[in-house]
Amino acid sequence: MAIDLICLDADDTLWHNETFFRLTYQRFAALLAPYSEAGIVAERLAATERRNLSIYGYGAKGFTLSMIETALDVIGDDVPRPVLSEILTAGREMMRHPVEVLDGVTEALDALAQRGRLVLVTKGDLFHQESKLASSGLGERFSGIEIVSEKTPDIYRRVFARYGAAPEQVLMAGNAMRSDVLPALAAGAYAALVPYEIAWDHESDAAPVDQPRYRELFSLGELAGWIDEINAASA
Amino acid sequence: MAIDLICLDADDTLWHNETFFRLTYQRFAALLAPYSEAGIVAERLAATERRNLSIYGYGAKGFTLSMIETALDVIGDDVPRPVLSEILTAGREMMRHPVEVLDGVTEALDALAQRGRLVLVTKGDLFHQESKLASSGLGERFSGIEIVSEKTPDIYRRVFARYGAAPEQVLMAGNAMRSDVLPALAAGAYAALVPYEIAWDHESDAAPVDQPRYRELFSLGELAGWIDEINAASA
Repeated sequence: MAIDLICLDADDTLWHNETFFRLTYQRFAALLAPYSEAGIVAERLAATERRNLSIYGYGAKGFTLSMIETALDVIGDDVPRPVLSEILTAGREMMRHPVEVLDGVTEALDALAQRGRLVLVTKGDLFHQESKLASSGLGERFSGIEIVSEKTPDIYRRVFARYGAAPEQVLMAGNAMRSDVLPALAAGAYAALVPYEIAWDHESDAAPVDQPRYRELFSLGELAGWIDEINAASA
Repeated sequence: MAIDLICLDADDTLWHNETFFRLTYQRFAALLAPYSEAGIVAERLAATERRNLSIYGYGAKGFTLSMIETALDVIGDDVPRPVLSEILTAGREMMRHPVEVLDGVTEALDALAQRGRLVLVTKGDLFHQESKLASSGLGERFSGIEIVSEKTPDIYRRVFARYGAAPEQVLMAGNAMRSDVLPALAAGAYAALVPYEIAWDHESDAAPVDQPRYRELFSLGELAGWIDEINAASA
């Protein structure tokens, strides 16, 4: 069967995201530099984020709350007003940062839209992701947007079913092996890894090199070509 | 045509929510009592929330960030560590508060599930709402959960279409005239208002008393009876 449904991750697949988290983190580390070493700040923030993940989930609002908690923890005393106010501002600026679509993505989506229905499948905050899709100017190309709290095989299966597509008619593409590729393959779909310039440490896993439904691509621009190959082979 | 799809709001329709916001707010007001009058604190928090709504959207995380910002504003100086730490704790406790299902809701849903597919339609944070549905013990009765960033006629139409239901086969029930009733009616569905014990100020609108597809109910337990009436009339 030909590919009918093309699912795409959003952050760091269609537009920059990790870069803004890093910039925000650098601002935060600079604010705390008078109080502690950079290494310790990074460690404490990571520990706070891990501890809060089951309560806050993913996204910029939870990240901002974890920065504030880490500042309390690192400073160990009353928190100077300018530090707090800077953290709140940095969080808000991260949330309303103009969306920067990755190079070549617009053209890639135009080619993909001729080959199937496009659906955005993304973790994170619905409100923030919808705003990003709207301001990216890419929204019209999509048949749907699916915000999911986790990317598991089961959740992928539900998304495919919701669009009436059998798993072998679906291709999922994204920058994260652990959340975009492996669970989509486990759900029976094709999956492409399109790495972002910065690899995200928490999500590194071995590539399923023996899996014929998997491919690593250099850019999203190569995806339409692979779909043509799949369709030709299954015709 | 008979009712086939029953859409239900979540917060303050199925379980308590506003109550927890109020309790959290009272904790917050008590923390700031040494610095300012209660009336001023309430005003400042409301203004901060309004200002942040387009960035944070709805939900407990944005509310916590707005409480912190208001504390900065009201205290006007370095914020004492215990105040901040209490606000963060209050926010987290609100987020992981055990879900308290409203009286009679479980029985009402059992009766409704015999009359159509149930879908949860709610604003707010996906992660938090999914956790609440899971811990409410009501999850199995639902065919789907739709987290929406706003409740507009257009968004309701998309939800109905997603479940393959014509508007005249859909009934939406919730506690808010502005977001549960009026836009669902505008989308062509039936709509029931089931007021919560505390009316939410921002969302008061006149009842569409001349609209035959509208009814105000005393509790969710009356909804199955109204559906039977609708079905009998359209048979």
